[in-house]
Amino acid sequence: MSAAPRQMRLGLFLRGVGHHLAAWRHPAARPRDSLNARHYRDLARAAERAKFDMVFLADSITARGWTAAPDVAGREGHIALFEPLTLLSALSSVTDHIGLVATASTTYNAPFSLARAFASLDHLSGGRAGWNVVTSSDPNEAGNFGLPAHPDHADRYRRGAEFLDVVLRLWDSWEDDAILADQESGVFYDRSKVHELAHRGAHFSVRGPLNVARPPQGHPVVVQAGSSEAGQDLAAATAEVVFTAQPTLAEAQVFYASLKGRLARHGRAENDLLIMPGIMPVIGRTAQEAADRHAKIQNLIHPSVGLHLLSQLLGGVDLSGHDPDGPLPAIADSNSGKSRLRLVSDLAGREGLTLRETYLAVAGARGHWTVIGTPEHIADQMEERFLSGGADGFNVMPPLLPSGFDDFANLVVPELQRRGLFRSEYEGLTLRDHLGLARPPSRFASPARRLA
Amino acid sequence: MSAAPRQMRLGLFLRGVGHHLAAWRHPAARPRDSLNARHYRDLARAAERAKFDMVFLADSITARGWTAAPDVAGREGHIALFEPLTLLSALSSVTDHIGLVATASTTYNAPFSLARAFASLDHLSGGRAGWNVVTSSDPNEAGNFGLPAHPDHADRYRRGAEFLDVVLRLWDSWEDDAILADQESGVFYDRSKVHELAHRGAHFSVRGPLNVARPPQGHPVVVQAGSSEAGQDLAAATAEVVFTAQPTLAEAQVFYASLKGRLARHGRAENDLLIMPGIMPVIGRTAQEAADRHAKIQNLIHPSVGLHLLSQLLGGVDLSGHDPDGPLPAIADSNSGKSRLRLVSDLAGREGLTLRETYLAVAGARGHWTVIGTPEHIADQMEERFLSGGADGFNVMPPLLPSGFDDFANLVVPELQRRGLFRSEYEGLTLRDHLGLARPPSRFASPARRLA
Repeated sequence: MSAAPRQMRLGLFLRGVGHHLAAWRHPAARPRDSLNARHYRDLARAAERAKFDMVFLADSITARGWTAAPDVAGREGHIALFEPLTLLSALSSVTDHIGLVATASTTYNAPFSLARAFASLDHLSGGRAGWNVVTSSDPNEAGNFGLPAHPDHADRYRRGAEFLDVVLRLWDSWEDDAILADQESGVFYDRSKVHELAHRGAHFSVRGPLNVARPPQGHPVVVQAGSSEAGQDLAAATAEVVFTAQPTLAEAQVFYASLKGRLARHGRAENDLLIMPGIMPVIGRTAQEAADRHAKIQNLIHPSVGLHLLSQLLGGVDLSGHDPDGPLPAIADSNSGKSRLRLVSDLAGREGLTLRETYLAVAGARGHWTVIGTPEHIADQMEERFLSGGADGFNVMPPLLPSGFDDFANLVVPELQRRGLFRSEYEGLTLRDHLGLARPPSRFASPARRLA
Repeated sequence: MSAAPRQMRLGLFLRGVGHHLAAWRHPAARPRDSLNARHYRDLARAAERAKFDMVFLADSITARGWTAAPDVAGREGHIALFEPLTLLSALSSVTDHIGLVATASTTYNAPFSLARAFASLDHLSGGRAGWNVVTSSDPNEAGNFGLPAHPDHADRYRRGAEFLDVVLRLWDSWEDDAILADQESGVFYDRSKVHELAHRGAHFSVRGPLNVARPPQGHPVVVQAGSSEAGQDLAAATAEVVFTAQPTLAEAQVFYASLKGRLARHGRAENDLLIMPGIMPVIGRTAQEAADRHAKIQNLIHPSVGLHLLSQLLGGVDLSGHDPDGPLPAIADSNSGKSRLRLVSDLAGREGLTLRETYLAVAGARGHWTVIGTPEHIADQMEERFLSGGADGFNVMPPLLPSGFDDFANLVVPELQRRGLFRSEYEGLTLRDHLGLARPPSRFASPARRLA
């Protein structure tokens, strides 16, 4: 677009009182803030003051951890939460610039309803909505929707791909200039610019058109998080932002090259898809202070909780019979998100960790990249990944909220700005503007209208 | 509760740029405001300044009118809209007192998802959410959800009743005091106070518990709008507010007595359910000015649109072959909302109206009570209904928004307050407080805890 230097994109991954597994136990946490609207309003406004591209919300459609053993289940502090679309809609009223990205499952929703809700959020926010498209991988979710078990991994992806295709076409079903609002003639809209899909697929039949006008962004930004082969293929075809867990630079570079390398076969350019790995920054004024802060919160992880989280990351395998001071046992493939399994096994193998050391290494940040140090060190690490083919930006996962984000905004963001790596002012109005993503024309518009 | 005089409850029924069928064509309307977030924020705040109990949103999960003949369909100005739950969530951030009531269908949603979204809205708003429980009656909705046609009226009601029962139990699944947030012991919640439903019914299987803590109101307020026999029976068993279309005092009294008379057999008291008919006030400083205003907007109804709306109110019967200056033809029962059919037939028969006169009489307010006159006259009419067994309050449907509501708030509300018929300040914090409805205990709480 211009000769301006490439800058990183930053998202604030909102998660109750923090991303660390034991965040709610920390003395600085207000553990009931997970369901406090003001807490999230303050965080979204703080992220906007820091010129972040977006806030991001994960999702689970079950009381996560509920079915674990009582000594584990009752210790889960991130279980009674806001539903993402309602929460982001609430945040749309108290922010002006920041993007609002919600996770929603293609496994247990209807495409018409979800297309409609995200189009509505895009209108409410003046073009700041994004949808993180996921398939549901927690087997406990099925029981809340009348199914004995999840569809398998491959079928979930086929359903997800068809779901997304239908949603994109519903967003296109009203062309941009369909509404005339001609009071004199009494004609409100031009029927030739509103389109039925008449979709009949393997999983869905959807007539359309949508009952929301075309979203301000054309399409809310399409985000994905799957890092498996099937996930990467779907992302290369359809995603505009990919969130991913890449604990080391080498893994991040491999993933980045693998995913970007798939774009050309779909006729897409490198900049059409932004890769934003998660980062959990543990910030101190000195390296020692940062290490002490990390040790303090790591010590709050109850052993049964750490083992259970590791078991979840490994697709539900039972680790309770194994010696915590022995090695991570070999684990067969399962029907979980496949990419996490490989990631954790690689980590334990590479560093020769015991079971206990493994859960401590991955539990805090749930498999994401943890960087512990001074603001300069954290900026160095982010700069290295950004400049050496590991990332287009980062989804920032503060261990504690709000304090961990306040530290990041006050200490790390100015350092990134000094280095020219991050914006000091918003350049545009919509999330697409922030991310440098083009606004897609409606596929129903005639070529002449598309070029106009 | 106290000896204070009974006061009426008032809701503002939000609907794009107004409730009159031709509202968008009126010179005072900004016809694109139907998708303008600021328009709704301003209205919600105006309703809160007027001390209204709630704002209310209807819903349709299809582009309403899209399948009509082109000359009708393209004239529909209320078609590209916000989704209610996202819109009300956005309004929760810019209001402090007013209730937020959204319509959502039991025909095309999953109980877990809807229970969760309304629980989330109740937390976001500090206890101001309400759910208008409907079954979908527009046959065009089915095609957006993969069905060739709607389930029939009776089956929709059976499904709706089971759906509501599951939602209420999900709201109860976390007892009020389940969350301990004990940082010292590391126990976040008391598992003995969180409950699975293990529901297996004719329409749904839902395990639970919900992944939202118990809503501030216990249950968001349960609203219903069905006025048929099946609708009244469900309402008598479960509704706390009923919206209804009652164009005359006599009909309002019959409906009021019929519905209130059904409460005792469900062990409920008269005040456990509030009946709030719709009213479209057309306000002038003089009776003549009001009549002129009404004539002006009635003249904006295109004949093809008026006939089509009448056809819709009659369940989709085709009226296009009939003489507009002849009488309303006799119409067989259908699979539509049955109460509207009787209402329109009664009106035409009672007043000897032609087809044209019938659509003009019902089209403007879509079958609701229209009152045309000075603020005093409108207050008189409301007072009469309120004091003579016709209503506990009203759902106010201004013909134009925002101007029609501004007139109501500035001219009619002070008159009602002078008469002691409406509050001058909010007495409580939640929608239940405003409506004088008790907060239900969780059905899972032990009797001792329920009494505590």
